[in-house]
Amino acid sequence: MLSREDNALLTQVERGTPMGTTLRRYWIPALLARELPEPDGAPVRVRLLGEDLIAFRDTRGQVGLLDEFCPHRRASLFFGRNEECGLRCVYHGWKYDVDGRCVDMMNEPPDLQFKDKIFITSYPTVECGGVVWAYMGPAERKPALPSFAWTRVPATHVTVSKVIQESNWLQGVEGGIDTSHAPILHRLLTSNTTRPGFKPDNPFVRGKAPTLALDVTDYGYRYAGIRPLDEANIHVRTYQFILPFHQIRPSRSEGGVPLVAGHMWVPIDDDNTMVYNWEYSTTDAPLTAEDRLERRLGNGPLDVDQTTFRSKRNRQNNYLLDRQVQKTESFTGIDGINVQDRAIQEGMGPIVDRSREHLGPADRAIIQARRLLLEAVRVVSEGGTPRGIEPTYTTLAAAEAVMPREADWREMTLAAGSQIEQTV
Amino acid sequence: MLSREDNALLTQVERGTPMGTTLRRYWIPALLARELPEPDGAPVRVRLLGEDLIAFRDTRGQVGLLDEFCPHRRASLFFGRNEECGLRCVYHGWKYDVDGRCVDMMNEPPDLQFKDKIFITSYPTVECGGVVWAYMGPAERKPALPSFAWTRVPATHVTVSKVIQESNWLQGVEGGIDTSHAPILHRLLTSNTTRPGFKPDNPFVRGKAPTLALDVTDYGYRYAGIRPLDEANIHVRTYQFILPFHQIRPSRSEGGVPLVAGHMWVPIDDDNTMVYNWEYSTTDAPLTAEDRLERRLGNGPLDVDQTTFRSKRNRQNNYLLDRQVQKTESFTGIDGINVQDRAIQEGMGPIVDRSREHLGPADRAIIQARRLLLEAVRVVSEGGTPRGIEPTYTTLAAAEAVMPREADWREMTLAAGSQIEQTV
Amino acid sequence: MLSREDNALLTQVERGTPMGTTLRRYWIPALLARELPEPDGAPVRVRLLGEDLIAFRDTRGQVGLLDEFCPHRRASLFFGRNEECGLRCVYHGWKYDVDGRCVDMMNEPPDLQFKDKIFITSYPTVECGGVVWAYMGPAERKPALPSFAWTRVPATHVTVSKVIQESNWLQGVEGGIDTSHAPILHRLLTSNTTRPGFKPDNPFVRGKAPTLALDVTDYGYRYAGIRPLDEANIHVRTYQFILPFHQIRPSRSEGGVPLVAGHMWVPIDDDNTMVYNWEYSTTDAPLTAEDRLERRLGNGPLDVDQTTFRSKRNRQNNYLLDRQVQKTESFTGIDGINVQDRAIQEGMGPIVDRSREHLGPADRAIIQARRLLLEAVRVVSEGGTPRGIEPTYTTLAAAEAVMPREADWREMTLAAGSQIEQTV
Repeated sequence: MLSREDNALLTQVERGTPMGTTLRRYWIPALLARELPEPDGAPVRVRLLGEDLIAFRDTRGQVGLLDEFCPHRRASLFFGRNEECGLRCVYHGWKYDVDGRCVDMMNEPPDLQFKDKIFITSYPTVECGGVVWAYMGPAERKPALPSFAWTRVPATHVTVSKVIQESNWLQGVEGGIDTSHAPILHRLLTSNTTRPGFKPDNPFVRGKAPTLALDVTDYGYRYAGIRPLDEANIHVRTYQFILPFHQIRPSRSEGGVPLVAGHMWVPIDDDNTMVYNWEYSTTDAPLTAEDRLERRLGNGPLDVDQTTFRSKRNRQNNYLLDRQVQKTESFTGIDGINVQDRAIQEGMGPIVDRSREHLGPADRAIIQARRLLLEAVRVVSEGGTPRGIEPTYTTLAAAEAVMPREADWREMTLAAGSQIEQTV
Repeated sequence: MLSREDNALLTQVERGTPMGTTLRRYWIPALLARELPEPDGAPVRVRLLGEDLIAFRDTRGQVGLLDEFCPHRRASLFFGRNEECGLRCVYHGWKYDVDGRCVDMMNEPPDLQFKDKIFITSYPTVECGGVVWAYMGPAERKPALPSFAWTRVPATHVTVSKVIQESNWLQGVEGGIDTSHAPILHRLLTSNTTRPGFKPDNPFVRGKAPTLALDVTDYGYRYAGIRPLDEANIHVRTYQFILPFHQIRPSRSEGGVPLVAGHMWVPIDDDNTMVYNWEYSTTDAPLTAEDRLERRLGNGPLDVDQTTFRSKRNRQNNYLLDRQVQKTESFTGIDGINVQDRAIQEGMGPIVDRSREHLGPADRAIIQARRLLLEAVRVVSEGGTPRGIEPTYTTLAAAEAVMPREADWREMTLAAGSQIEQTV
Repeated sequence: MLSREDNALLTQVERGTPMGTTLRRYWIPALLARELPEPDGAPVRVRLLGEDLIAFRDTRGQVGLLDEFCPHRRASLFFGRNEECGLRCVYHGWKYDVDGRCVDMMNEPPDLQFKDKIFITSYPTVECGGVVWAYMGPAERKPALPSFAWTRVPATHVTVSKVIQESNWLQGVEGGIDTSHAPILHRLLTSNTTRPGFKPDNPFVRGKAPTLALDVTDYGYRYAGIRPLDEANIHVRTYQFILPFHQIRPSRSEGGVPLVAGHMWVPIDDDNTMVYNWEYSTTDAPLTAEDRLERRLGNGPLDVDQTTFRSKRNRQNNYLLDRQVQKTESFTGIDGINVQDRAIQEGMGPIVDRSREHLGPADRAIIQARRLLLEAVRVVSEGGTPRGIEPTYTTLAAAEAVMPREADWREMTLAAGSQIEQTV
């Protein structure tokens, strides 16, 4: 549980709030690169940390991310014309380049123009991993570019999607780094079903309730959920949490190929989150077209409208929960592993009241994540650099295995390249 | 008219408000028994006095009514699994019985569980008259079970339905105990119509504007609207008001059989009300399938969606008001007697500003009801027991008749079994 | 730019606000006369300056405009019966005439009625130019009836329409009196299109960015946008601004006949505006059926639902913006000149933050309009009579022409009949 004050501190992200200031020290996913498929194409609305912005790809291919509203009379640049290396407001023809400079002023005679005095808020962007990332913080603190394992593999080997979640970002993070719910919420009741989820014979399900072992690192933490299987063996599944909102977990393709997967929970505003979902192949085998449909997770184009990024199974239709299926096939009666997560996390309300929780030992990873986020806020307020800024996370992965009780799970968590500070 | 302060006092029902505390001393209808048709069936969302709750019928058939949110991490129990005498949260598998005890904790190893320390808010329930009633007040003040004439007749002889009204509950009560509007709002303009309402030759319509005679009783009041018909005769129609929100009135089946009918206006929250509608046969004749359609009132399955309990004629479509019908057939041009009531009461806005009313002698029953409700709030605040708690109302009914001017209407109001305190 | 305080002062219109008090000194368009086509027809909801009202045409043809809510118990008179020279509340049958007098009280016996003590708020109305105008101010300050050139031509020569705009009224006014945006926002990219807008060969488009010349008058101002065409010629287009919200501009029928046109931006409330659009023929030629469709502007029955007065192209569907059309045919990719205006003005948000603007010389007409509106508020607060009340505007028109550089545009602005105070 958290005090109401700490709950507000962790969840509020608008400019000027402590967490808003902290998040603005990181590179933040702004949109998918494929939403801006061509130079001089249609501009796109982006709402990020409570700010209304417009993204566009200019004639040279560079992505601009500007305040939505023209500084002249505050017309929306969503209506803008993307032409000749700039975005032009259609109201009076003022035009801005990707750096926010005003480069034309159609409505004023040349001798009366005052272009040099006009700037629009613009944020630096970079594209990698199929994502356009933005930096919304102070120029002098701009960190190294994002560089995750998944952003560096060839495009043939990685897929990334996004979907809107109608809740605060922290509810997403806390679901993503919580191993204890996974074989419960996502459980299947029978092996005789094609629905997504963990079948009864999966050691993840067969294992008893887990104990957690957690190493705090310079990027956040890694941890394992350790489930006793029998006298000799345990099931171990590891996760990485990289501040402020990155999760890495082991996964598997539809065809059974081992993958590494993860999410980023990016605040749209206090009450809405854009969830980014990525998966990449750790072998030579590229992803297949089927993999890119993300049927199992319910995040792909079959499940999420690719214009609005709203899930077809959503709060308004109770996620198409089928009570008969819940009786006989799956624990929830809802199809799609991440649809199940969204149902639960949206069902808590926009910002859950953490002062009314009752946490136990299985919630230690959540408790630790909150501590690290509160620490990050404090470090930023003192002028320092919080965890997850320095790219010590670049080779992280996660894994899952059945192993002898006496084996060391840490050997399995793939090259960390980072400092372990403390084992909790 | 009321002061703004008294208007707020009477209309606000959330926990901790004076009226909220008062209402929580009574048994409150929570949902229809038929919404929980079978043991271990689907749980149902219930919003009552501003509280979000989940109802479920357990393996033994008992109805539980729990806080919607799991005390662990506040996931919604709407998604819960109803199994083996309890409702299990699908997020981490915590499970609660109808009394709110935590009986399982799937995510924690046995030696780390702390079930005994976890309780979820639960309210006692009882089923009678086809309704599940809840008691949301202090345990030591739990009153005798609800026992109305209509809850004690055989199921063959009674029908009960419900419909959402988009206004505060008091607007419903004040419409229900107001005889003066009935032969005006619900009037037909011609006898040559099949639309529901009171025809011109009905003595209720033929009679002149009424005078009101009212007896305050230990349960609330009974009163009569007395309408002069001619030199010799009057039309009398009686009503019972039982605190806090029960009305009893005379009625008649589609086939002309005399019935007794009534409403309960149960606050969903300050701005929304669940209106319960019941009718029972006072003779040996059971109700027919046609009676159960409630065509005349517009409350049955033909008129109200039986999943959402929203009326098909509603504010968004102006209740399908037909101005031509209003010119030639009915006073309002709206079909359904209680649809007409809802149109008027919702049209006042969520909470009508009673400081801007202009009441007259015909409004005496309304004025008296407010006085009794204000008295109940005061009595409760002083630790006492308000009217309508003790079951002195169990044999009440209401009737309608043409009678000689000199006859006593009180003889007609069927066994009161209660104390008359004052005649107003 | 404006201070936040002045922005609030100019935009807030509810009763009791300084601008609300100022606007209530003028005749205000309440609805189209054709919305009340016949005596004793259906009453119509009208929201005006934040007040909920009901309009009805009584048996004699006179238009009443009453508070929506019956003074008795505050039922909505939208449900009312319009009969025998009055509007009758269907709840208890109280009836009001167009002057707000209570003339019947069905629910009370004759000896208990108190009709003489009951009044409902009613506003005087007058019909002219196809519009019902209301006066909502103090009786002793009621001004002369509205009398514009367009309200005095035969009905065959004038058309008037209305459409809801989801923004504050001032955003509409400021767009309407701003010549500098017109040949930019409404520009066509090619002459080879049938879409509405200004083609590249139009001198309005060929001309360079304008300088503005403005004469403050006793009704508001007239001004010209002057655009250099070549060494010898200029293009001049004049506008009239009549306080508080009238615009007059030159126009042209679909068939090329010169017209005079204009708008009125009437506050529904702070966040919504009813835009009235009128056009009249200045020659002997009447308007055609085609003219009344207002295809070019996008305000007619093909484009606006004539029951709800919502535009079919609206914020929810991005005004059906077509990015391919925006690339090749029109500056915005949106069809309909006034749809383009609404897109821009609604896109600014309900009330634009004028403290964050950057205005230039091309915005002088806007700056001047704000000054005059602030002056009007001050004059009214001091008990005086603001500009635009006295009918000095009755013969105003506007015009457009290519003329020699040395010609005087003021000769072109048609009979002013008013006093020029100052040339800005």
